[in-house]
Order: sequence, then C-alpha cells, then structure tokens
Amino acid sequence: MDEMDQLVPDVFARDCASRAVMEHVSGRWGILALAALHEGTFRFNALRRRVDGVSEKMLAQTLQTLERDGFVRREAEPAIPPRVEYSLTPLGGQTAEKLLGLIEFVEAHLPDVLAARAAYDTRKAAG
Amino acid sequence: MDEMDQLVPDVFARDCASRAVMEHVSGRWGILALAALHEGTFRFNALRRRVDGVSEKMLAQTLQTLERDGFVRREAEPAIPPRVEYSLTPLGGQTAEKLLGLIEFVEAHLPDVLAARAAYDTRKAAG
Repeated sequence: MDEMDQLVPDVFARDCASRAVMEHVSGRWGILALAALHEGTFRFNALRRRVDGVSEKMLAQTLQTLERDGFVRREAEPAIPPRVEYSLTPLGGQTAEKLLGLIEFVEAHLPDVLAARAAYDTRKAAG
Repeated sequence: MDEMDQLVPDVFARDCASRAVMEHVSGRWGILALAALHEGTFRFNALRRRVDGVSEKMLAQTLQTLERDGFVRREAEPAIPPRVEYSLTPLGGQTAEKLLGLIEFVEAHLPDVLAARAAYDTRKAAG
C-alpha cells in the first residue's frame, strides 16, 4: 500500500511508512542518539563518545536519518574550523522522553531479566 | 566491563547487558511481537499473520529471545497436534505498554515526519 493511500498509520502493516519511522527511532543507534541529545546539544565527536561503541559512519547515517525525519536539528555555524551542532527538535524531544521511559524501565529490571535467563538456561539444560 | 562488575545498569555503556535487552525489546520484530501479544494470547501462526512481514525463522528466534529474557511465556499443551501458545509475562506486559506509547506517538506524528522529509529533500535539492 502506498503511504499516501493509507488513512490511519499502522506499524503492523508492513508497508506503512510508520514502521520505518519506528525503526529509525527505536533502532540500536537511533535510541541512544536521541537519548543522548535529550541531555543537551552535542558536537559530532562528543556525541560519538557519549554513544559508546558507535562507528563514525553509523552515527553520521543515524543523525542524517533522524534529521530528515524531523527529530534532530543540525546547525552549522560559519566558523573556522566549521562548528556543527546537533540538538533535538520539539518532536525529537517528545520522542526521546518516551524512549527514556523505556530505557529506565529496562535498566531497572535488568536483574529480573538476568534471573529469567538463568532459570531458562537451567530448564533447557535439564531437558 | 563484565555485566557482573557493574552496579548500575547503563545502556550507554557498550558492554552493559541492558543494551542487549533494549535491542531485544525495541528491535524491529521484538517491538511488534510484544505489541501484538499485548492484545492477547496467540498461537505461532496467528502471531505471524499479525506481525505482517516477519519470516517464520525470525519470529521463532524473536520469541525465543523474549522468552529467555522473561518477557514472553510459551505454553505447550499436551494435545495432538501439540498446541503452543504465547503470551506476555507481567514484565512483558509492562514493557509492551511503554512500547505501545511509543508506537501510538509515532503513528500520530507520521504526518509531521513526512512533512519534515519533504522539507529536507527540498532544501537538499536546492543545494
């Protein structure tokens, strides 16, 4: 279905544009970039240090996708050397708050998850 | 850092176990499987129809990961043919509610995202 034919966005429909947007904000690096930018404005290299483990290429691609979707603002100041700063748009800020709720929930329940894994592995080992 | 050495889970730390858990629940198929199971108990093939576009292999793998992490319960009834049902655990239910908040937000703001994209592409085309 073409995205323009669809009156009500539905992430369960494989061709709905909303599914791709979900993947941009909830993908591995999308989540962490939005959550980091919720802390404030970052220059590229500082953001890369904050999002521990991301490659330069993946961070650049993630930021470009989030900028195009309207979640991230990229501002280049005419200076020598050029100074490029990334921040959240209002839409990005609202999205980041929802993601932070999920992050805090997962972090808080990590012990439950590790306990569930240990129980699962014990069951499987017992056959 | 070993996950056991770390007192406070932090998804920003590349080796923290919480980052992998985030990826299990917020990955492409993890989100949709949890959101679908929030609607009720499903058998495998019905769930596969609900999560439009997922392959049998990817759905099986997603469910197994979510079961091991303690978000999904798998119940096999001794019947002929065997009847296997999937549902959410209480932890999975709480996680699904956070994901649904994000899904509904993204669906509701899809028009804003599409407008942002059109504006971005126009700016780029203008050079």
